[in-house]
Amino acid sequence: MARASVIGTGMTTFGVHDRTLAELFAEAVFPALDDAGVGTTEVDALYFGNAMGGQTENETHLAPKLASHVGMAGIPAQRFEDACATSANAFKHAVQAVESGVHDVVLVGGAERCTPETGLDTAAMTRVFASAAHRQVEQPTGLTFPGAFALLTKRHMYEHGTTEEQLAEIAVKNHYHGSLNPRAHFGRDISVEEVLDSPVVADPFHLMDCCPFSDGASAVVVVSEDAAESFDGDPVDVTGIGHATDVVPMADKAHPSTTQSARDAAAEAYDQADTTADAMDFAEVHDCFTGAEVMATEAIGLFEDGGAGPAVAEGRTRLDGDIPVNPSGGLKAKGHPIGATGTAQVVELTEQLRGEAGDRQVADAQRAVAHNLGGGAATTVVTVMEGRA
Amino acid sequence: MARASVIGTGMTTFGVHDRTLAELFAEAVFPALDDAGVGTTEVDALYFGNAMGGQTENETHLAPKLASHVGMAGIPAQRFEDACATSANAFKHAVQAVESGVHDVVLVGGAERCTPETGLDTAAMTRVFASAAHRQVEQPTGLTFPGAFALLTKRHMYEHGTTEEQLAEIAVKNHYHGSLNPRAHFGRDISVEEVLDSPVVADPFHLMDCCPFSDGASAVVVVSEDAAESFDGDPVDVTGIGHATDVVPMADKAHPSTTQSARDAAAEAYDQADTTADAMDFAEVHDCFTGAEVMATEAIGLFEDGGAGPAVAEGRTRLDGDIPVNPSGGLKAKGHPIGATGTAQVVELTEQLRGEAGDRQVADAQRAVAHNLGGGAATTVVTVMEGRA
Repeated sequence: MARASVIGTGMTTFGVHDRTLAELFAEAVFPALDDAGVGTTEVDALYFGNAMGGQTENETHLAPKLASHVGMAGIPAQRFEDACATSANAFKHAVQAVESGVHDVVLVGGAERCTPETGLDTAAMTRVFASAAHRQVEQPTGLTFPGAFALLTKRHMYEHGTTEEQLAEIAVKNHYHGSLNPRAHFGRDISVEEVLDSPVVADPFHLMDCCPFSDGASAVVVVSEDAAESFDGDPVDVTGIGHATDVVPMADKAHPSTTQSARDAAAEAYDQADTTADAMDFAEVHDCFTGAEVMATEAIGLFEDGGAGPAVAEGRTRLDGDIPVNPSGGLKAKGHPIGATGTAQVVELTEQLRGEAGDRQVADAQRAVAHNLGGGAATTVVTVMEGRA
Repeated sequence: MARASVIGTGMTTFGVHDRTLAELFAEAVFPALDDAGVGTTEVDALYFGNAMGGQTENETHLAPKLASHVGMAGIPAQRFEDACATSANAFKHAVQAVESGVHDVVLVGGAERCTPETGLDTAAMTRVFASAAHRQVEQPTGLTFPGAFALLTKRHMYEHGTTEEQLAEIAVKNHYHGSLNPRAHFGRDISVEEVLDSPVVADPFHLMDCCPFSDGASAVVVVSEDAAESFDGDPVDVTGIGHATDVVPMADKAHPSTTQSARDAAAEAYDQADTTADAMDFAEVHDCFTGAEVMATEAIGLFEDGGAGPAVAEGRTRLDGDIPVNPSGGLKAKGHPIGATGTAQVVELTEQLRGEAGDRQVADAQRAVAHNLGGGAATTVVTVMEGRA
């Protein structure tokens, strides 16, 4: 029994855009509605994610504005913010709403502007991103997110022998996948040498271990499993969503490289879906840094602890491997417009499970898992979806 | 059949506080848990509201941080933002969650810092508040919220003959109520003459027609109607919650002084509760400006259109009137820490419906309605609650 179904998807290219949040959002919404075969008057509610519009362009209270902009003025519209896991959490609430009968047809999406098009340079934007770290304990020390994930990754290297070369292999793989994705921020192949030769940002991360700041938007249409048949959109089922948090600040974590909230969220999602990690045909995970992909793929059970580095080096997580990871290119190559990332993962799962992913199609994809993380691995939402083929 | 029950409440005084958001929130949470007879380990989820922490103090991703701060690290924790209706919307989602069995015990609350204690002066904070207006159409014209509500109120005066003296009577009434509320920002009586002699901020509003910027936090514990009996906290039932939005920007509204989203939300809430406005014993409404109280009380059906001004002048909305409005002092006198206001209204309804409101107790209060508004009357959440006495 599915919890809900996705019947339509849309997203902008991720990259640098000189357009407003409303314009970006509309560019994702209308294709999603067309795909679903749903008219604007059939949408009952908007669940919207944006992480930092207040800081980047003095824009809050976006939900009713965006509903108005896409012709849905009047519907219940709400904004969620949980750092980089913002729109995955909006999606979770939408699934609960259709499952419990609160709404029949929910539009879920996210939009964000993070590039210098906002008028903020990299230093200013880094401070904005740091707002998702502990205000009193972490921010004053200069612990921005490259440093935060470097600390977690260093511990993983110490405990499991993960190497910088293995991390670089993740960047290379995700750039390769991104080169197959017409909506990716970065569309060119890179080499391990290029990654290792790029400047060190926060040891062990080189510049090319880090995802970019992107502008973009994504949207999906969510309905109940039963209602899905009455629309034109080819449904993909949501069989489980888990959501957990970990202690903040990071220094209080029981174990730095475990990313416990991902383990808790994954256990919940697999349990709801009555499945296991072994049954997944591919995964989209939150690779804000290459080291984050290592920890994510272990936490959601694709590999034993310490197994992710060797797995990527062996090519197992490439599109033609036994468990492709981030066929979209991931945050690393597809890009990372914060509040749009969670729903974009759902877009990728839906397109893949429909068999509509084009050059980056995962062969025989029947079920998949998405992992969206916020802050210092503090919020994690894990989603399991299954095709009906 | 109630949708959910509130079994515990807590809030800080509203005013000027030199404390962090986490400290303020904790000061609301622990009394709420004590009141409910609920331990920290019994709470299943946190639904949290904060509107502008990113802008005021570069603090986002607050939900897991605050959960950690109050000893609940690990639970699903999420932040909502819908301008001044932020925590009413968090509360709506919490009610849906316990009603549908997603969670058993949910902690809901809000916290905000809006005073110069943040380091921002009135001009800077006015710009922050304006972020809830349309970024491209309203903000560049200088249409901040005193001006926005002045426009709506001017239209109401033109159509219905509402007078500046009637508006001033609302300020006087709410200050009187506030003088009876030990947690109110403003605790002294004022006169109609004082209001009319205070400087004009945006015609027809004088300074004393406007609510203050406040710091503060509020929290409630929400459980299902059935589960309520198993806790020590005296339950008050949530029988209806409606949520609607109106078109953004304000210039596109079908009618400026109607505040249509309030009418839609109220109709939904009364319908769920199988009741009518006539059955309400009192109301807490979003009086960010005196004119907003006029429009709110008419929109939720306490008076005919045009009837609110005369009603307040006749004393009908005073504590000893036939339909007391804002016995807490309302935003005008109790204060308005944006993200904490919605839940604070629920705190007031709960205390009144338990008969525990002290000097400001509404006589024989059995059922009541709360109206929480965001932006240019774009988001409105209306909640109906009933006591079990």
